[in-house]
Amino acid sequence: MSSGSYRGAGAELLSKHGVSAGDTVSISIDGGETMTGVLMPRYESASDSYIVIKLKSGYNTGIEAAKIKSITKIAGAAGTAATKVTQQQQPSPPSKQEDVKLPKIALISTGGTIASKIDYRTGGVRAALSAEELYASVPELASIASVDPEVLMSEYSENINPGHWTIMADRIADKVRSGRYDGIIVSHGTDTMHYTASALSFALQGLPIPVVLVGAQRSSDRPSSDAALNLIGATTFAAKAPVAGVFVAMHAGTSDDAVAVHIGTRVRKNHTSRRDAFESIDVTPVALVKDGRVEMQKQSGIDLVPRGKGKLNLQSSFDSRVALVKYHPGFDPTLVYWLISKECGAIVFEGTGLGHVNKNLFGVLKEAAEKGVHMFMTSQCIWGRVSMTVYDTGRDLLDIGVVPLSDMISETAVVKAMWALANTQDLKKTMQENLAGEMSSAIPI
Amino acid sequence: MSSGSYRGAGAELLSKHGVSAGDTVSISIDGGETMTGVLMPRYESASDSYIVIKLKSGYNTGIEAAKIKSITKIAGAAGTAATKVTQQQQPSPPSKQEDVKLPKIALISTGGTIASKIDYRTGGVRAALSAEELYASVPELASIASVDPEVLMSEYSENINPGHWTIMADRIADKVRSGRYDGIIVSHGTDTMHYTASALSFALQGLPIPVVLVGAQRSSDRPSSDAALNLIGATTFAAKAPVAGVFVAMHAGTSDDAVAVHIGTRVRKNHTSRRDAFESIDVTPVALVKDGRVEMQKQSGIDLVPRGKGKLNLQSSFDSRVALVKYHPGFDPTLVYWLISKECGAIVFEGTGLGHVNKNLFGVLKEAAEKGVHMFMTSQCIWGRVSMTVYDTGRDLLDIGVVPLSDMISETAVVKAMWALANTQDLKKTMQENLAGEMSSAIPI
Repeated sequence: MSSGSYRGAGAELLSKHGVSAGDTVSISIDGGETMTGVLMPRYESASDSYIVIKLKSGYNTGIEAAKIKSITKIAGAAGTAATKVTQQQQPSPPSKQEDVKLPKIALISTGGTIASKIDYRTGGVRAALSAEELYASVPELASIASVDPEVLMSEYSENINPGHWTIMADRIADKVRSGRYDGIIVSHGTDTMHYTASALSFALQGLPIPVVLVGAQRSSDRPSSDAALNLIGATTFAAKAPVAGVFVAMHAGTSDDAVAVHIGTRVRKNHTSRRDAFESIDVTPVALVKDGRVEMQKQSGIDLVPRGKGKLNLQSSFDSRVALVKYHPGFDPTLVYWLISKECGAIVFEGTGLGHVNKNLFGVLKEAAEKGVHMFMTSQCIWGRVSMTVYDTGRDLLDIGVVPLSDMISETAVVKAMWALANTQDLKKTMQENLAGEMSSAIPI
Repeated sequence: MSSGSYRGAGAELLSKHGVSAGDTVSISIDGGETMTGVLMPRYESASDSYIVIKLKSGYNTGIEAAKIKSITKIAGAAGTAATKVTQQQQPSPPSKQEDVKLPKIALISTGGTIASKIDYRTGGVRAALSAEELYASVPELASIASVDPEVLMSEYSENINPGHWTIMADRIADKVRSGRYDGIIVSHGTDTMHYTASALSFALQGLPIPVVLVGAQRSSDRPSSDAALNLIGATTFAAKAPVAGVFVAMHAGTSDDAVAVHIGTRVRKNHTSRRDAFESIDVTPVALVKDGRVEMQKQSGIDLVPRGKGKLNLQSSFDSRVALVKYHPGFDPTLVYWLISKECGAIVFEGTGLGHVNKNLFGVLKEAAEKGVHMFMTSQCIWGRVSMTVYDTGRDLLDIGVVPLSDMISETAVVKAMWALANTQDLKKTMQENLAGEMSSAIPI
């Protein structure tokens, strides 16, 4: 982190009050409000008329210089976390003393916005920061856990494919088997983080520790970035949670101080840009992480595995010969003939409502069934359970051999089918079994 | 409606208190609660230990006989709406007096659960009730409007295809042009009601009156049916709303007394079974209908057309050569080659996040663009706006010629593309114009 000096109105203000980046300051604003935090360096992309402070929550906020009445220095850079940033530019291995006191966490970086910075040439965001830089830029982590960072890959998550899942699962298994870690964090782009979370849930069954995927909707050099808060939340959960398994930790709700932790197979990115884009589907989040505490939530229908009880069963292969087909009026049934010709192993339908498709597909679905293509039904409604015994259409589809997947979301279903096709003998049976919380017997209202 | 006699515990209770189906009764329940409504006939499918009353809200509720302390008859069947049910088994044309006093509404039935009944042989639900039966079974309608019912078709909505949209649009246009109606209601299965609502929104631009699609998540002979409430809400909106256009009216929230009215191009079925499954996406609902009143909601970013201002422009053709493609990790890029070979006119992608797909698709997308296939980008996140200038991937897709569709939902985008392909010269330009509220400049938080 450079000292990145402010310019214009911001620079004048800081000079007037004798403060500089790294100082802990108390800022009094028009209207009587006071905000306390660490004065951050100026970002290249920021307006000259704003200054940015990192609040205690880990959240950065920009304050318009014109609205600032006064700035009081509470502590100089030397006495604050901001100094640690500089000190940890080249993180050194934690001391023996830290080893004893703090939980040990592995941080595996795969890319995405949480590890990205602005490309000043194009104005866009590029995957660039290393796990080391990330760790260095969120000094709060040092007080929660002894974090051991590693860059495994650097991919936008839209480019992540099943081959990457295998690499990630194998590397995580290595770290779990080393017995050195209390938890593992995987930083990941948000676009397909929920697909990867599903994939790791099936590939890494029986985990004795939490594996927590984390991302950011806004990059870490933007004032509104959720990178620090999310990383702190993920680390806290990985270090302290009483449960094991694969989870996703992201900004909760519209408040700026809580991170929600979701079951890896039951989470979906439901907004293109909001920081609270990730939501648990048909279940409540596992936990909220707030003020350094893990608040476990009451679950219905999902049995969480206690930390330390599991025995890892790594099955990290995936077979991509699975299609996800979303039905819509005017859908061309001949697509299914093409899938048969491609020797597709399984088709996951996103049907309408309780799990329906147009009756004009019945003919080709019968042919697909006869040719050994496994077919599964989920709902494009997203929430709720498919139920194919209510209407004629559903019963006809059951007769043809289309298998309903209860309340499994389609994204999880397609990943599970790719995993089951590579690792199990009876695809149909495996798809209907709950392996990693992907299906539940009760849906909370 | 038959007198459908109760049996067992229910029959004993009714006999003891001297009440029968059609009577308005006040029922006192263990715990002190009292419920007032019209005693409904016993349903074939109902348990003998429950009796059912229709509350003032139009909502039916079942009460366990064992929990009933007393039943008081408030009015006999002769003095209640329940008698009208029998009288209106064969609805007669409204009298001249009614014509003058009440708004005139056309009710077009197309099928679905709102017009369905239990098939006692299979236990499933079959599309069966005619619009006449529907009208007869919700006598409250008679006090809101003079309703003119017609059965146009009887299809489960999963079987509705673009050809049906044309038939519906043409028939609605006939009714609008007759000048006889203050509003039109279209009863429709819920599975694809939002696709049809989009289709009618584009086919029937410039409507001078409201066209309101309505359905039911639970059939009208089930105690928890939303059929009556939704139909009453749709009729009230069609009769009284100050705005014109195509809307969807369905049960709002978890309360039992409000119906939400959504813009036809901005609504989605978001739950497989809940009565409040339909939600406006990225906009607030147009109105809530409650206690017979239309409460218009504050809109942001969408201009509603006042009633009576429009001049109908019927363009009811649709060209089905449009594919909806949902990207996922492991997606097979050769699907796009198949779509090119099928002379697909347009592909609507459901990309990840802000509108991305894997870079391994770039090659085939370039070929598709060169072959004249129009390509559009929406997001599988559902909520939020695509933005393809933030990341490298988005900018690369823009360079290839993939056109971003702002906050248009994918279901609306595929319908609009089918409509635009049949009715306009410049598909790309039409898709980027807001024609029926399908895109907005502001998204409410």
